[in-house]
Amino acid sequence: MNSNIVMNLSGERFKVWYRVSGEKGEAYDKALAICLEQTVEFPRELVPEVILEQIVGRIESFDPIDDDHFMACVSYAVETAGGELTQLLNVIFGNISIKPGIRVERIELSPRIAGMLPGPVFGREGLRRYLGVPKRPLLCTALKPMGLSAKALGELAYQFAVGGIDIIKDDHGLANQPMAPFSERVKTCSEAVQKANHETGRHSIYMPNITSSYSRVMDLAREAKQAGAGGLLIAPGITGLDVIRELAAVGLPIFSHPALQGSYVLSPENGFSHYAFFGQLTRMSGADGSIFPNFGGRFSFSREECRSIAQGAFDDLSGLKPIFPVPGGGMTLEKIPEMLEVYGRDIVFLIGGGLHQQGRDLMENCSHLLKLAEAM
Amino acid sequence: MNSNIVMNLSGERFKVWYRVSGEKGEAYDKALAICLEQTVEFPRELVPEVILEQIVGRIESFDPIDDDHFMACVSYAVETAGGELTQLLNVIFGNISIKPGIRVERIELSPRIAGMLPGPVFGREGLRRYLGVPKRPLLCTALKPMGLSAKALGELAYQFAVGGIDIIKDDHGLANQPMAPFSERVKTCSEAVQKANHETGRHSIYMPNITSSYSRVMDLAREAKQAGAGGLLIAPGITGLDVIRELAAVGLPIFSHPALQGSYVLSPENGFSHYAFFGQLTRMSGADGSIFPNFGGRFSFSREECRSIAQGAFDDLSGLKPIFPVPGGGMTLEKIPEMLEVYGRDIVFLIGGGLHQQGRDLMENCSHLLKLAEAM
Repeated sequence: MNSNIVMNLSGERFKVWYRVSGEKGEAYDKALAICLEQTVEFPRELVPEVILEQIVGRIESFDPIDDDHFMACVSYAVETAGGELTQLLNVIFGNISIKPGIRVERIELSPRIAGMLPGPVFGREGLRRYLGVPKRPLLCTALKPMGLSAKALGELAYQFAVGGIDIIKDDHGLANQPMAPFSERVKTCSEAVQKANHETGRHSIYMPNITSSYSRVMDLAREAKQAGAGGLLIAPGITGLDVIRELAAVGLPIFSHPALQGSYVLSPENGFSHYAFFGQLTRMSGADGSIFPNFGGRFSFSREECRSIAQGAFDDLSGLKPIFPVPGGGMTLEKIPEMLEVYGRDIVFLIGGGLHQQGRDLMENCSHLLKLAEAM
Repeated sequence: MNSNIVMNLSGERFKVWYRVSGEKGEAYDKALAICLEQTVEFPRELVPEVILEQIVGRIESFDPIDDDHFMACVSYAVETAGGELTQLLNVIFGNISIKPGIRVERIELSPRIAGMLPGPVFGREGLRRYLGVPKRPLLCTALKPMGLSAKALGELAYQFAVGGIDIIKDDHGLANQPMAPFSERVKTCSEAVQKANHETGRHSIYMPNITSSYSRVMDLAREAKQAGAGGLLIAPGITGLDVIRELAAVGLPIFSHPALQGSYVLSPENGFSHYAFFGQLTRMSGADGSIFPNFGGRFSFSREECRSIAQGAFDDLSGLKPIFPVPGGGMTLEKIPEMLEVYGRDIVFLIGGGLHQQGRDLMENCSHLLKLAEAM
């Protein structure tokens, strides 16, 4: 086969850091296996020389973490990604997602890869301008529970907006159920938030959940914008990550929800680091906010894991805009000072049930939360 | 809120079996948490009575597996899925994918859920008719390595087809790279296989990889059909599972590739069972074949896990057609007798690099494989 192969590659490469388990020899063999598995998926001895040199992944460094774990940095020719986020994901972690003991710790893009991924349209600063909130933490809550009518959800949305919540999103379980069908809900809740804005002079937005069938998701996004929604909520674990990149054209801020994604980060030995997954990948797809379960809530992420997500959302990533970490999940007002310490002010507080549990009335609870945020 | 809520649900429910870890009390609390988390995501004490009764999941049974594991069967109103596979996935395992110690073991659909998921168009029998192979195991191989030109891949495809391979698929890493761009590759390889069929009188098919951007995947599928491809390969871990349902309209058999999906099944405590994931979910999406790594190859699935995938592909699932298990990944001809014992004859043998390693020439190796299969 060798004689037929003429390649004219750019020489530009992107890098992935993998945490590989096993003693040194075993771990190094795994790193070599990554190089093959993620590109040619072919026995090394059968790979033509020019492909081995140019297409197969290359170990750039290999360093001990502890006795049983090593950090392997593997670089790939940008051409392996074929100009698409989908194939880039495949090169980063396609087949080796099935091999135990390999975890993606960090991704380093290159100019051409970053160029094919324009990333977040709004980003952290754009979203602040859009909402008219230059400095304090942003406030977000969810319309729930499933089972309420569109009218009842609209009434809640109005109260949240009057109370001062910046982003009023659908609970991620609200889809097109007969209790509150999408079109009716989006119209009712958008109008409710606009009415509240008219009264308060603020710029709260309603962010409906557009997670839906392949053939409907773009239509729902456009319908939402048409109806006056101010943002879009989507769960890429369900729809695929590339949909977010596509949604950029709609021109509304996008928050990513972690439904169905937990399996990627629950094991320290497999999958992705929190940094790479909820920080980098979400940002690469083009989301402006990355929702994840906060430490100390109903879920199990540690404080350090949560902090690393915020770092992945902010750290340099070939010029892609920084985005907002959006910690939520069983949060209460009491946790806010600690969260501020961990995340800083560039954060979206997502408080759902906690706002209802606070006693007093809902609008007052929101105002209380807003006062807390404004004092930060 | 309570007085506003009028619901008129059908009473029909679907069921999910969750393997929950922890001692009995803790595990039962987790099962209760599943019921809330997957529906209302709201503190129980705040959920209006009628929603608690009709929308929140219901524990149908709770039985010990061992001292630290229990099997909880939870049922949900069909209306919670809102008529879409995407929201059905969200109800089955959205938020609780982030909670450690919960694994989906098995799914039981209901008539209305099955009705919204037509499932595989071809299925096992349809694919046998389509390929003209009534009884023996089907044979599949992959065009690789990445880096070859479309012409070189076409030459390989021709040799495989003349040699008697039924399904000649792209390696899942072949996307739209400059070395063998999609359009050129699909045309060249489709024609090569058709030429071979003309000579042999057999019905081999070329199955290109259409895993691609959200906006391109359907176009690629139609282009592939137009060019004479006989099937479609897609990695739903990258594109989202619902794309497969949508692809049914193209009218070609579909194989699902496990890239990026490993994290869902690598932990015995989290994610999905092999049965539910590579058997049931893949079939629910509408794939006709489910590719997974065979036991004893480069990956770590056990013989029992692989057997369970075949069961999930065949067992009754509210009338959805049975599909083919397609074990591959580091397979060699020597393993065939053992595989036959595990899977029976209703299997697709996926042999990639192993065919090249066999010595002699490629066409001869294929003929040898075909003779083995015909003797079964």
